[in-house]
Amino acid sequence: MKKIGVLLSGCGVMDGTEIHEAVLTLLAIDVAGAEAVCIAPDIEQHHVINHLTGEEVKNETRNVLAESARIARGNIKPLQEIDSLGLDALILPGGFGAAKNLSDYAFKGEHFDVLPEVADAIRSFYRAGKPLGFICISPVIAAKVLAEEGVEVTIGNDHTASANIEAMGARHVNAEVFNIHASLGGKVISTPAYMLGPSIKDVAKGIDKLVNAVVRLA
Amino acid sequence: MKKIGVLLSGCGVMDGTEIHEAVLTLLAIDVAGAEAVCIAPDIEQHHVINHLTGEEVKNETRNVLAESARIARGNIKPLQEIDSLGLDALILPGGFGAAKNLSDYAFKGEHFDVLPEVADAIRSFYRAGKPLGFICISPVIAAKVLAEEGVEVTIGNDHTASANIEAMGARHVNAEVFNIHASLGGKVISTPAYMLGPSIKDVAKGIDKLVNAVVRLA
Repeated sequence: MKKIGVLLSGCGVMDGTEIHEAVLTLLAIDVAGAEAVCIAPDIEQHHVINHLTGEEVKNETRNVLAESARIARGNIKPLQEIDSLGLDALILPGGFGAAKNLSDYAFKGEHFDVLPEVADAIRSFYRAGKPLGFICISPVIAAKVLAEEGVEVTIGNDHTASANIEAMGARHVNAEVFNIHASLGGKVISTPAYMLGPSIKDVAKGIDKLVNAVVRLA
Repeated sequence: MKKIGVLLSGCGVMDGTEIHEAVLTLLAIDVAGAEAVCIAPDIEQHHVINHLTGEEVKNETRNVLAESARIARGNIKPLQEIDSLGLDALILPGGFGAAKNLSDYAFKGEHFDVLPEVADAIRSFYRAGKPLGFICISPVIAAKVLAEEGVEVTIGNDHTASANIEAMGARHVNAEVFNIHASLGGKVISTPAYMLGPSIKDVAKGIDKLVNAVVRLA
């Protein structure tokens, strides 16, 4: 059975993984007959947002791995163990966690940095010819790490993010929520998900296509 | 468009709503052409569990409504406003939140209490002929609140929980994870979900059936 890594970044769209995107990814992997292996970095979240008010909660810290474990029902591994997991592919769901915890794109825009162990994992999978899937805002990470490879990604049609992607030296391609864009021999796949929405059934269509492409290529 | 209430109890299987069950419920409602309205009580969680270790986190409190808002992407209403929301049906996903925050079943077994505003909502919907859906462990709440009506529910085949349900004066019926059990004229529907699992695609099948039955009857 193919093992598909799902890299989480917390639990909640405003400060972690977008929960619907993560669960839809896990569902599509299971339906496709592959095994999902959830992983997350063992680091503190950038901050905690009260998802009811949208306000930052001062004086509270949460750990990305422990919060991601909520989505994974406790079945999760630290990102630092990724090389020992025998993964055949890697998928990054979206949510602000990808732009606040796995990288600092949310704060710095174009001139942002990717967490080194995340960048290393993506480069390693790419060099090994293992497929990579990027959902929602996480394609900015692919654009940053794989710009020199000439990667093309989609985040839907957001003007700022697509301009940032082009400025990094990668290429942005508009796509609809129910579609994917494949690049670099089909091994780097992206879908807009909640960058466009509007609703969960729309997001599910693109994620289903992305997961099926990743599993098929793995 | 029919409005289906989804009563959440936090965010994470060990101390709140089971996240997969909640997201699969929201997906099925959207696919069925109805509108999901997330609600949760504005109370403190019973406790916080680190989902990586399974251990209780001492000296930390989280609010059920604010944590549930993570699953709802911020789009959630307090349970106390339920009468003003114009809901046509109500569904309770599972997770220990149903047994720790919406009730104290996890601690007291058969002789447990249901949060009064939850019991009131269930009774009110039942009397109004509006369908009710109970997923995973939440059917114990239906058994407690609607025992005098002669309700039948399923939580799969768990021996302790089914014995508790019978001892409350309700009736338990075994069911498979991909099935539902309908009672009281078809208006009270339950499915085992992660009481049986084992995996998300199995759970999805029963939840799809439950949601479709609830939406059709609403």
